[in-house]
Amino acid sequence: MVKNRVNREIPEEFAEKYNVYAGETANIKEYKESSRTISPVKPGETKLLASLQEAIEKVGLKDGMTISFHHHFREGDYVLNMVMDVIAEMGFKNISIAPSSIANVHAPLIDHIKNGVVTNITSSGLRDELGAAISSGIMENPVVIRSHGGRARAIVAGDIKIDVAFLGVPSSDEYGNANGVKGKAVCGSLGYAKVDAKYADKVVLITDSLQKYPNTPISIPQTDVDYVVEVDAIGDPSGIAKGATRFTSNPKELLIAEYANKVITASPYYKTGMSFQTGTGGASLAVSRFLKESMIKDNVVAGFALGGITNQMVELLEEGLVEKLLDVQDFDAPSGVSLGSNEHHYEIDANFYASASNKGSAINQLNICILSALEIDTNFNVNVMTGSDGVIRGAAGGHPDTAMASDMTMIISPLIRGRIPTIVDEVNTVITPGDSVDVVVTEVGIAINPKREDLLEAFKSLKIPQFTIEELKEKAYAVVGNPKPIVYGDKVVALIEYRDGTLIDVVKNV
Amino acid sequence: MVKNRVNREIPEEFAEKYNVYAGETANIKEYKESSRTISPVKPGETKLLASLQEAIEKVGLKDGMTISFHHHFREGDYVLNMVMDVIAEMGFKNISIAPSSIANVHAPLIDHIKNGVVTNITSSGLRDELGAAISSGIMENPVVIRSHGGRARAIVAGDIKIDVAFLGVPSSDEYGNANGVKGKAVCGSLGYAKVDAKYADKVVLITDSLQKYPNTPISIPQTDVDYVVEVDAIGDPSGIAKGATRFTSNPKELLIAEYANKVITASPYYKTGMSFQTGTGGASLAVSRFLKESMIKDNVVAGFALGGITNQMVELLEEGLVEKLLDVQDFDAPSGVSLGSNEHHYEIDANFYASASNKGSAINQLNICILSALEIDTNFNVNVMTGSDGVIRGAAGGHPDTAMASDMTMIISPLIRGRIPTIVDEVNTVITPGDSVDVVVTEVGIAINPKREDLLEAFKSLKIPQFTIEELKEKAYAVVGNPKPIVYGDKVVALIEYRDGTLIDVVKNV
Repeated sequence: MVKNRVNREIPEEFAEKYNVYAGETANIKEYKESSRTISPVKPGETKLLASLQEAIEKVGLKDGMTISFHHHFREGDYVLNMVMDVIAEMGFKNISIAPSSIANVHAPLIDHIKNGVVTNITSSGLRDELGAAISSGIMENPVVIRSHGGRARAIVAGDIKIDVAFLGVPSSDEYGNANGVKGKAVCGSLGYAKVDAKYADKVVLITDSLQKYPNTPISIPQTDVDYVVEVDAIGDPSGIAKGATRFTSNPKELLIAEYANKVITASPYYKTGMSFQTGTGGASLAVSRFLKESMIKDNVVAGFALGGITNQMVELLEEGLVEKLLDVQDFDAPSGVSLGSNEHHYEIDANFYASASNKGSAINQLNICILSALEIDTNFNVNVMTGSDGVIRGAAGGHPDTAMASDMTMIISPLIRGRIPTIVDEVNTVITPGDSVDVVVTEVGIAINPKREDLLEAFKSLKIPQFTIEELKEKAYAVVGNPKPIVYGDKVVALIEYRDGTLIDVVKNV
Repeated sequence: MVKNRVNREIPEEFAEKYNVYAGETANIKEYKESSRTISPVKPGETKLLASLQEAIEKVGLKDGMTISFHHHFREGDYVLNMVMDVIAEMGFKNISIAPSSIANVHAPLIDHIKNGVVTNITSSGLRDELGAAISSGIMENPVVIRSHGGRARAIVAGDIKIDVAFLGVPSSDEYGNANGVKGKAVCGSLGYAKVDAKYADKVVLITDSLQKYPNTPISIPQTDVDYVVEVDAIGDPSGIAKGATRFTSNPKELLIAEYANKVITASPYYKTGMSFQTGTGGASLAVSRFLKESMIKDNVVAGFALGGITNQMVELLEEGLVEKLLDVQDFDAPSGVSLGSNEHHYEIDANFYASASNKGSAINQLNICILSALEIDTNFNVNVMTGSDGVIRGAAGGHPDTAMASDMTMIISPLIRGRIPTIVDEVNTVITPGDSVDVVVTEVGIAINPKREDLLEAFKSLKIPQFTIEELKEKAYAVVGNPKPIVYGDKVVALIEYRDGTLIDVVKNV
């Protein structure tokens, strides 16, 4: 066992292969970018194939190869299951899959794992059935969890070498110019897919909406695409882009949001030109609402908002309260529409968004980010991956990326959930190290990371109850009692890779 | 000496290093893409430097390295001379320069060559003073001439490995998001610069118009940029983007244009959805005018027009006669403005435009291209590089690329220029092989490449005088007599690389 900088014990075999987490930027070094093998397409050659099977044959898929998918279609995705079914039918085994994330709808992967078709997975997260199956130990090799920025880094650095990317796209022409803003099943930004397209040896686009050449705007260019396959449907629009998100009416969430807004507006970052990223949960969206009111009152205009975009952000843009949106993915239908029509709403890829090892990510320019948590411990470490039962059910997303890079990282969370404390002595799984976290906001008050002396000073006269993180924990434990320790098995079922490629934690079976 | 497929003798030493031209697609093979060394930029680090000298120090420039520039500023460019002067002052020697092209304004390179600062050049072309100096033999190593697509191929394949790209940009933010549509000296598309930015180890942006972060649209992204330097002026707007181009009133050019338009409209490609690329010379622009009239009369709408864009193309777009423009560079101010404001006017990079060795270039989708020539020989080989005196004064541009890939390649040219025949027994220098040329259009009539039996058939009833290419040559020689052979020296002053990386010709000193 090797103990890393957040006191997590990493088994030797994994510690040797990945190195262990040694601090936010300890492992950021000059490196040689990964490159792909290009099979030139000559004049007169067509890329349009009749079926997925033909595409799989033409790209030369072999047992043991790595294939990738994107998660822009979320719970509406048909593509991953469709492709995996064909691959299984064709008899392939020992495939590594590297989707940008995995949704509930991908539970059929459980059978492909059991049948030996899929033997390795890397993903931002795992949900419900698949998460539980992985946590029960159905895979021989641990899943590798990577944040959105960490995945981009891994692809650019060659730690993930994608042999074939199967990318569903809402629209494409026959030569492979694709975007997510036209077609039957619009998803908006193709920010995660763009990275796969650029670094994979072979790229197959799967679409249900062929367009005339040249299909513009060009999110994925023809120069990154080998083949195009037309299918009946790539996804369920109602699962891909939900309608406009509603605001919460939960009083606890509203109080958290009100406190969070007070923290933002009292911070040194709150001024015209500022930048921020908010999440999609009820409390996060409520923060946006309160922040909007403050910005109008104080005549503050933000320079840009970043990240996964919601209709709340689009409204801020349209009302002139935010000058630009940088968009790596869209969470609802209005955001996809805005991306396709508003020149100040700009698509970026996951590498541009959040990689730790490029020539500068957008998150490096971020003043404020608001993130959620399943657990926060007294070292400010955050868990967004495993539940209180130790079972994998979350996703790293951009959590460790934005937390590390932004000037002020706020974790908003209720003090307890049901009978479970949120502030604990030690989180089950460290996804984001405490060094990256600045302010924890709960409904009873806030805790500021003591290393942020500047913020302790800035918030001295702030009219919100302020506590140490230990005090918040005591308050939580006082209500629901000390949490019982989880009984884990001995098998490592998931490796938690920090955004720099080192291991920050492992998850064992339960 | 090795004789290549167009009967040119290539000295052994160069033939071994480059291979010799063996046919349009004989050398197109699967290959490993070049990759760069990335120096990560962490949160809090700045890219904005105070001077070019500081940038040159920070990127670690060394004697013997390769640096690049782009030619989007044409005769208005200040950047190449500015950077080379600083490099020379700092005492560097033996630098290889790889600009996308070289203009008259870059004549100061002659001194840098004589002083040993610059010892290798690759470029699309050479003009006036520098061309004459190179042709006189001032360099020890031959200049390597590459077409626009050939240069992109060479960079992507690693044949040109750019250590540092010095890229002038009309606007950028401090983190390196740049475009050519904002600022004091707008050039429109940054299509050539984009390739350099993507593959160079180090990229320095030079701008006279710093913008707030994030500067959009993003032609060159922050993820490709190491440093940004602000200077007083990057170029002379009047030399960068000339005003709207005027039509010719030269009767010979008008007759050629009229014939060319008749060829187009009688061809099987003339129908709604067609695509074309025209040039910028007087006759080319006149073709656009005639074509426009025909399209209106016949109710034909083109799918897209491609290439270097002029205000004539922009007008066709705005009038609904062309649906989209794919733009690798702009030749005048209205085109740059259109690129910044019309969503159907789309910026592409040189790799997307014309590389022979990617997953499919835009030129592969091209129906018709109209190109000019200094000479055409009876094998339909075309010279756009050396004058009738054998001196280098032209540029390959996209000539061999578009000629090879488009369905119908038309060369428009007067039969004679002054007392010099244009149609000759053998061109001085082969830039585009005869296999790529379909129809030669002169003011006395046309000649169709006999291998295009389909066009011979299609144009049977066309009301234009038709000749064999030999007959056209005879007509030219009948007027001005047989041209006198040029007396070359023994020194190879330029290698002409075909778009696939092989040598199609060499130029000797005069």
